[in-house]
Amino acid sequence: MDHTESCLFCRIARGEIPSYKVYEDNLAIAFLDISPASRGHTLVLPKEHCRDFTSCPKDLLDHCFEVAQTIAQAQIAQLGATGVNVLTNVGPSAGQSVFHFHIHVIPSYREKVLDLTTKPLAIADKEMLLLQDEIKKAI
Amino acid sequence: MDHTESCLFCRIARGEIPSYKVYEDNLAIAFLDISPASRGHTLVLPKEHCRDFTSCPKDLLDHCFEVAQTIAQAQIAQLGATGVNVLTNVGPSAGQSVFHFHIHVIPSYREKVLDLTTKPLAIADKEMLLLQDEIKKAI
Repeated sequence: MDHTESCLFCRIARGEIPSYKVYEDNLAIAFLDISPASRGHTLVLPKEHCRDFTSCPKDLLDHCFEVAQTIAQAQIAQLGATGVNVLTNVGPSAGQSVFHFHIHVIPSYREKVLDLTTKPLAIADKEMLLLQDEIKKAI
Repeated sequence: MDHTESCLFCRIARGEIPSYKVYEDNLAIAFLDISPASRGHTLVLPKEHCRDFTSCPKDLLDHCFEVAQTIAQAQIAQLGATGVNVLTNVGPSAGQSVFHFHIHVIPSYREKVLDLTTKPLAIADKEMLLLQDEIKKAI
């Protein structure tokens, strides 16, 4: 069986499962998250199946983030949002639960929606230089 | 005074303030966050000043997310990350603290770095339809 047959977001993109759609074109679709973190929480995704942000072809990646920008602007203009979190998660250890690349566009109002505060790690200069080298190696 | 004179990220992009730089081209720069949420936490930003994700010109937006994709791939390939959170925050209510558009690329390893769990709101169908209409109006 083609894995896209059973993929939840492929099925929504094909219209087989209903959604609160706010935008659609040939390449992408955007709809309200049915487990919203805030009023107006929207998901943007390519219609073509890809697993996550790291495996999305560049043209589709560009397009999806441009759609996400339009959605964020609309949330501020129409819903009175004072802020927006735009995020995408890669892999279960980062909280990805549906394995079809999608961008969360989460409006915030008076209060923060996501608690993004983390305790910053204390990393010695020597290790920062090692990390820098390792990442540069792969670019 | 030109506001970019004092902007922290403009100054890093101009090389006036040192950074653990992992990537640079004519349009964008990427460097390690000095208050990292995890080992290898990287920021990607356009050299040209813009306040946030919603006000970034589309060509720069595309380019920055393509660089972020390369960084995420490098974190997985070189640092052994098993997941990555890619996020950008718009406005103080969403946790933005430096007002020069930047993308966080945060690798995760065995444990989650960000606690993104929220209590999903229960929003009635009628209000979901209203939210859908409001967002569609501005697109």
